[in-house]
Amino acid sequence: MTVLSRSLDDLAAAAAAMLAELARISDASDNLTRLYLSPAHRRAADLVRGWMEQAGARASIDAAGNVVGRFGPERAPTLYCGSHIDTVVDAGRYDGTLGVVAALLAAEEIMRSGADLPFAIEVLAFGDEENVRFPTSLSSTHAIAGGYDPAWLTRRDADGTSLAEALRAFGGDPDAIVGLARDPAGATGYLEIHIEQGPVLERSGLPLGVVTAINAAWRADCVVRGEAGHAGTVPMFLRRDALAGAAEMVCAIERLGAGIADGVATVGRISAMPGAVNVVPGEVRFSIDARTPSDAALAGLVAEIDATCAAIASRRGLDFACTPFMQAPATAMDDGLQQALADAAQRVGIAAPRIPSGAGHDAVAMARLCPVGMLFVRCAGGISHNPAESVADPDLGIAVVVMIEAIRAVAETRGR
Amino acid sequence: MTVLSRSLDDLAAAAAAMLAELARISDASDNLTRLYLSPAHRRAADLVRGWMEQAGARASIDAAGNVVGRFGPERAPTLYCGSHIDTVVDAGRYDGTLGVVAALLAAEEIMRSGADLPFAIEVLAFGDEENVRFPTSLSSTHAIAGGYDPAWLTRRDADGTSLAEALRAFGGDPDAIVGLARDPAGATGYLEIHIEQGPVLERSGLPLGVVTAINAAWRADCVVRGEAGHAGTVPMFLRRDALAGAAEMVCAIERLGAGIADGVATVGRISAMPGAVNVVPGEVRFSIDARTPSDAALAGLVAEIDATCAAIASRRGLDFACTPFMQAPATAMDDGLQQALADAAQRVGIAAPRIPSGAGHDAVAMARLCPVGMLFVRCAGGISHNPAESVADPDLGIAVVVMIEAIRAVAETRGR
Repeated sequence: MTVLSRSLDDLAAAAAAMLAELARISDASDNLTRLYLSPAHRRAADLVRGWMEQAGARASIDAAGNVVGRFGPERAPTLYCGSHIDTVVDAGRYDGTLGVVAALLAAEEIMRSGADLPFAIEVLAFGDEENVRFPTSLSSTHAIAGGYDPAWLTRRDADGTSLAEALRAFGGDPDAIVGLARDPAGATGYLEIHIEQGPVLERSGLPLGVVTAINAAWRADCVVRGEAGHAGTVPMFLRRDALAGAAEMVCAIERLGAGIADGVATVGRISAMPGAVNVVPGEVRFSIDARTPSDAALAGLVAEIDATCAAIASRRGLDFACTPFMQAPATAMDDGLQQALADAAQRVGIAAPRIPSGAGHDAVAMARLCPVGMLFVRCAGGISHNPAESVADPDLGIAVVVMIEAIRAVAETRGR
Repeated sequence: MTVLSRSLDDLAAAAAAMLAELARISDASDNLTRLYLSPAHRRAADLVRGWMEQAGARASIDAAGNVVGRFGPERAPTLYCGSHIDTVVDAGRYDGTLGVVAALLAAEEIMRSGADLPFAIEVLAFGDEENVRFPTSLSSTHAIAGGYDPAWLTRRDADGTSLAEALRAFGGDPDAIVGLARDPAGATGYLEIHIEQGPVLERSGLPLGVVTAINAAWRADCVVRGEAGHAGTVPMFLRRDALAGAAEMVCAIERLGAGIADGVATVGRISAMPGAVNVVPGEVRFSIDARTPSDAALAGLVAEIDATCAAIASRRGLDFACTPFMQAPATAMDDGLQQALADAAQRVGIAAPRIPSGAGHDAVAMARLCPVGMLFVRCAGGISHNPAESVADPDLGIAVVVMIEAIRAVAETRGR
């Protein structure tokens, strides 16, 4: 294991202090809200740039609002590390920021140790991961990864400000975004630390997990139509009860979701019409959200859900229609980077299970540029997007140290 | 079979004409609405009283607003026949009125035939069966049956008018209601014809059914509490999904309801919180409406539903609470009167199946006074409480003739 200049406790304390300082930078007076290109985002970006410079990087805020700190030669293969510093409204202090702070502390330690790496390290603090202010999808990440959609610049926020206008007000440059895209040939990989935003690690009693994939996702609105009737006078055998049918479908969707490895299927919304205590429901609407680690598994799950619901409807004399409204492909984590993260955890003496990510991350966009790998850190109760978001201080130190070891492991296996 | 002064077609036409005339008497200009003690109710009561007098009865409108037409001696055992002439808002033309018109035509025919009956026939047109205007329960029927609750007189309608005030404005007399109660010793029975308000007879291809009981009914509000979570990040095996649990309960409630002879169980209302496509529901609320032909069967069904839902909740780590808010006992139809109605149908050449009533009727109140029997007439699509309510004209004639035969059958077996 690498000899560090700071103890695990020191690194944990440093990370906690930096996260606390970032958490004080908000657009709202009574909670943490830091939307893309807002005044608070600018102040946070300036703070992070300053930290990068203190750590020995050449740092700047780029044309898309990303903070970039480069450790190592300008012209060299590059290992990218980071996450985002924008937040949702009324956010917690770890989502995104932990990945930036951990990458920065790890890069600083490695540089201080005088390691001879076959690549430069670029620490990235993206600005538009939550996509709360503008209707975009990881726009500032895509600027670096090469997948920027110029149409995003014309999108407007709730106040009518376009993304291009907001960029200029922030100090960015819409016209220079195209030049931010990195060359895939020189991109060694992208490593991201992020809080899990789920309960698996906490329930396992383990601080870290190696992400296998960011799950493919599919959403649909369903409608079940039967025949409304008097709850007292229509006998059971003559009913075409839309809710009883929908309930059978909800049970089947749960069972099918649980039958796919690392898959989930959720019915989150339901309504029954006319919705009276003494009327057999004639129509029910419900939503489905299904996610799996691979596109093929998702296609299989969706087909099974559709066929099973159709069969239930047919047997009950009901009509069933399912209208998909969202489909996102899976982002597989690179096998080599998964192994590097797993090896790094082992060197630190931590068992890190492989788990899928049910939520999207900057790594989705960065996967266009290069192989990506992610490390999850357990968070209390699996709670995220909430002021109650919490990570234990010791886990912060462990995350930084595993990141250091992972960068070393990548250096040993890649780029030479 | 009795020799009638009018043909089946004539009786059907007479009933249809009377029903059409009543249907023109409404408190609303664009639909049929005739609430208890309204101006339209008064006009309808006057019309019915006139018909009764033309048919040879001594007729009056009593202190509670009931129209009473007596055929036969004043002091004699009495067979009561009838139903109600009040309606719901935007009603159909058969609910209640068919029973009044059929009873009146039947009594008139029997009197014209010169039959020597061991009882007088009193045709009753009750006024407060739908209980739409005042929060009462069959108040005018209970006035005659002896179950009147004086507290009803202080109840107010939506305009703030008390039932006592409305009675006086109508021409009734709150103070005289107590004197309307009939002596059970002189009450031979009560026969009521009513539309089925359900689809069983139509699906059977039969015009009439002999009612076995007015079902006991029970209603409850249920709440299932689990744990809300991210639909992408909480794996299936760690979920406490309130909606998946509730869906399993809805399926169980349907199965348990179908397992009781002539029982029904319905979940008519459901809501899931927070109700977002990407959030595992943490809380679900739903209603249950359960009805069976006997109180014992209902108690058993309710206990089974409660135990089954509790077991589902327990297995899934959910909380389940069920709060009953309505319980009405069953009203059994008299075996002898059921037999008289079945014999009457047979004499007319009609197969009349025995079926329970899922809805309440005046017979519920009259059962306090004497044995009761009911005959259901099929209605199109089982539709009721709706302008689309419809009974085929030939069925009107059949209903009148079967009522005539039933009165004769009662005369043969009772009262001598």
